[in-house]
Amino acid sequence: MIDETLHQTVRVDLGERAYDIVIGPGVLAETGTYLATLAPGTRCAVVTDENVAALHLDAVRASLSGAGFEPGTLVLPAGEATKDFGHLRQTVEALLDARLERGDLVVALGGGVIGDLTGFAAAVTRRGMGFVQIPTSLLAQVDSSVGGKTGINAPQGKNLVGAFYQPRIVIADTAVLDTLPVREFRAGYAEVAKYGLINDAPFFSWLEDNLDAITAGGPARTQAIAASCRAKAAIVARDEREAGERALLNLGHTFGHALEGITGYRSDVLVHGEGVAIGLVLAHAFSARMNLCSPDDVKRVTAHLETAGLPTDLTPVRAHVPDADALMDFIAQDKKVSRGALTFILTRGIGEAFIADDVPASEVRAFLQQMLES
Amino acid sequence: MIDETLHQTVRVDLGERAYDIVIGPGVLAETGTYLATLAPGTRCAVVTDENVAALHLDAVRASLSGAGFEPGTLVLPAGEATKDFGHLRQTVEALLDARLERGDLVVALGGGVIGDLTGFAAAVTRRGMGFVQIPTSLLAQVDSSVGGKTGINAPQGKNLVGAFYQPRIVIADTAVLDTLPVREFRAGYAEVAKYGLINDAPFFSWLEDNLDAITAGGPARTQAIAASCRAKAAIVARDEREAGERALLNLGHTFGHALEGITGYRSDVLVHGEGVAIGLVLAHAFSARMNLCSPDDVKRVTAHLETAGLPTDLTPVRAHVPDADALMDFIAQDKKVSRGALTFILTRGIGEAFIADDVPASEVRAFLQQMLES
Ligand SMILES: NC(=O)c1ccc[n+]([C@@H]2O[C@H](COP(=O)([O-])OP(=O)(O)OC[C@H]3O[C@@H](n4cnc5c(N)ncnc54)[C@H](O)[C@@H]3O)[C@@H](O)[C@H]2O)c1
Ligand SMILES: NC(=O)c1ccc[n+]([C@@H]2O[C@H](COP(=O)([O-])OP(=O)(O)OC[C@H]3O[C@@H](n4cnc5c(N)ncnc54)[C@H](O)[C@@H]3O)[C@@H](O)[C@H]2O)c1
Ligand SMILES: [Zn+2]
Ligand SMILES: [Zn+2]
Repeated sequence: MIDETLHQTVRVDLGERAYDIVIGPGVLAETGTYLATLAPGTRCAVVTDENVAALHLDAVRASLSGAGFEPGTLVLPAGEATKDFGHLRQTVEALLDARLERGDLVVALGGGVIGDLTGFAAAVTRRGMGFVQIPTSLLAQVDSSVGGKTGINAPQGKNLVGAFYQPRIVIADTAVLDTLPVREFRAGYAEVAKYGLINDAPFFSWLEDNLDAITAGGPARTQAIAASCRAKAAIVARDEREAGERALLNLGHTFGHALEGITGYRSDVLVHGEGVAIGLVLAHAFSARMNLCSPDDVKRVTAHLETAGLPTDLTPVRAHVPDADALMDFIAQDKKVSRGALTFILTRGIGEAFIADDVPASEVRAFLQQMLES
Repeated sequence: MIDETLHQTVRVDLGERAYDIVIGPGVLAETGTYLATLAPGTRCAVVTDENVAALHLDAVRASLSGAGFEPGTLVLPAGEATKDFGHLRQTVEALLDARLERGDLVVALGGGVIGDLTGFAAAVTRRGMGFVQIPTSLLAQVDSSVGGKTGINAPQGKNLVGAFYQPRIVIADTAVLDTLPVREFRAGYAEVAKYGLINDAPFFSWLEDNLDAITAGGPARTQAIAASCRAKAAIVARDEREAGERALLNLGHTFGHALEGITGYRSDVLVHGEGVAIGLVLAHAFSARMNLCSPDDVKRVTAHLETAGLPTDLTPVRAHVPDADALMDFIAQDKKVSRGALTFILTRGIGEAFIADDVPASEVRAFLQQMLES
C-alpha cells in the first residue's frame, strides 16, 4: 500500500482530455490498481528500454498481473537513437501483433525517450489507443511526461515528427529515481529549476533551501516534482498546442539546443539538461546585458545550478565551438529569423520570464562572442 | 475563371476545424487563388502519384505559380502499396527537406491512396502542418477526402496506422474525373449509391434517373458529388471520431472487406468499390433474409448497381472462396465478435440503414453458404 500522506496528485486540466499525475514513492507498485480502475476489462502492453527493464519491469508486471492484466512487453535499446522511424514502426507493429483494440492501454515505462516514442506509437496505432506514462527519469517526471508532446527525431532535427497526444494517467514513482545515474538526475534538475525561473520566484527560493533534501529523496523530492508538474500543467492547460504562452517553457532552450547541436548531440559531452543549465545562465546573462534583469540574479542562478552539480558556462563545449557564428547558425536553424530579429525567452529577473519577439540577432552574436572569449 | 453557376461548396462543420469542399469542373485551375486566400504568405508542397502527375500536375503547378507559390513536388508510385511506413517516412522527410514550417501547406493531389498517406504525413510532420486535399478519383472526391481519416496500412491489416486530421480546404475538380479509368469511376460510384442507401431514398431515386448524366459529366456529376459530400459531412460532424453513428458509413463494407481480403487485395480481381457494390447487395439481401427489408428493395439495389457496371454477386470472387467459413474468418477479423454476435450495418429498406449489434454469426454463415451455392 502507498502512504497517502507521502503522495500527491496533480490534475492536468484539458477538458475532455484531462488526467491525473500521481506522484510519490512506491506508486509504481499500484500500477495495476490504477489501470484497472481507469479502464476496467481492457488489455495492456508495456514498452520500456533495456536499462529500465532490468531495474523496474518486474515490479510493474507483478502489479499488472495482480490486477488481472497479462501485459505483453516490448524492450527497446536505451538511448536517444531509439526515437526514430524504425523503432516507431517496430512499436506500432508489436501493438498490432498483440491484437490490442482502441480502448486498450499502451504503457510507457522509462525516460523521455521511451515516453515520446511510445506516446507517438499509441497516438497513431488504430488512430489512437489508450496511453499511460510511467516516467522513470527526473526529466521525464517533471517535463516530458507532462503536456502531451510525443514524437521521434528525423535526420533533419530532433522531435520533428510527432503528435499532441495526452495520456490517461501518469504514474510518477519518486523512488525509482534512486537507480538513476547521478548525471541524469542532475540534468533533470535543470528543468525543475527552470519552472522557478519562469514564473515562480518563491519556488526557486524553496529549491535553494531544499536541494539536499530533494536529492536525498523523501517528501521534498515529491514536493519538487509535484510543483514542477503543476507549473507545466498550468501553462499547457492555457496553451495546449503551443500557440503562445507555452513557449515560456523554452527558457534556456534556444541556447541549450544550439550547444547540443554544435556538440553533435554527443551525450558524453553534454546531455540535454546540462545544455539547459548553461542555457538558463546565458538567458539571464543576456537579459542582464540588455538591461532587463539585474546582474545579481545572474549570480544567484549560476550559484544554484553550480551547487546542483550542473555546468554553468561554456567550458564543457568550448572545444566544439569554432566561433560565435557557428553557434548563430544553430540558433537560426532552431528559430524563425525574420528581418534579423529573433524570438527568445528573456527575463526581467527570477520568476519573470517573457517572450521577446524582436531580439536583434547582432546583439545575440556579440553576446556569444564575449562569452566565448571570457 | 470558374463558372460560379456550375460549382458548389459544401461546408464541413467541425467547429474550429471546419472547412469547405469546393466542387465543380475547372476548380483545380483556381488552386493558387484558394491557397493564397486561405493562408497568405505561406509556402507549399505537392504530393502526388505517377499517374496523376502525368495528367494533372502541370495544371496545379501553373495555378500555384500564378499565385506566387514555388511548390516543391514529390511524385510517388501509384497503387495501394504506397500507403506504407516506407513512403510515410519518405514523404515526411521530403517535407522537412523543403523546410516547410508548421503554418505552411501540404497538398495531396491524387486518389485515396495519396490523400490518406499525405494527410497522415501532414498530421505528424512538426506535429501538424496545414493540409489541402485535391482529390482526383471519384472515390476520393466523395469519400476518402471527407471526414479527416488519414493513414497507412500495416502488415496486420489495412488502415491500421493513422490520425484523424482535417484538411483546411478540399478542391474537388469534377472534370479531372474524365481521365480516370472507367473501372475506377464505377468503383467510386458504389460509394455514391451508398449514401442514398444509408439514409436518403430520394437521392437514390435521383441517382437511378440521372446515372447517364453523372457518367457524362456536367451539372449532374457535380450535383451527385456535392450531395455525397454533404451526406458524409453531416454524419462526420455528428461523430468525428467514430464513437457511434459514423459506423453507418460502413454499409456494405463488412462483406466488401471480407471479399477484398479473401482475394488478397488483388486489384485485378476486385477493387474496393467493387467489393462495396457486392457488399451493398449482400447487406440488403441479408436484411431481407432477416425479414427487415423487402425483397423488392434488394432487386432495386441490384438493378441499379448492375446498370452502373458494377458486380452484384459473388461471381468475380467465387474462385477464391473455398467455403463460407473462410469468409467468416475474414469477417471475424474485421469485427469484434462478442459471444457469437456481430455488429453489422443492416437496413429496413432503401435509405433506412441502422447499426445492429446483435447479429448472430450463425445466421451470417448460413446466408453466405446459400449465396455461394446459388
Ligand atoms: N515530450 C516532451 O515534452 C519532452 C520534454 C523534454 C524532453 N523530451 C525528450 O526526452 C528525452 C530525454 O529524456 P530522458 O532524459 O529521460 O532520456 P532517456 O529516456 O534516454 O533516459 C536517460 C537514461 O536514463 C535511463 N533511465 C531512465 N530511468 C531510469 C531509472 N529509473 N534508473 C536507471 N536508469 C534509468 C535510461 O535508460 C537512459 O539511459 C529526449 O528525447 C527529449 O527530446 C521530451
Ligand atoms: N480516408 C478515408 O476516409 C477513406 C475512405 C475510403 C477509402 N479510403 C482509401 O482510399 C484508397 C482508395 O482510393 P482510390 O480508389 O482513389 O485509389 P487510388 O488513389 O489508388 O486511385 C486509383 C487509381 O486511379 C489513378 N487516378 C487517380 N486519379 C486519377 C485521374 N484523375 N486520372 C487518371 N488516373 C487517376 C491512381 O493513380 C490510381 O492508379 C484506399 O487506400 C482506401 O483505404 C480512405
Ligand atoms: Zn528541456
Ligand atoms: Zn469504401
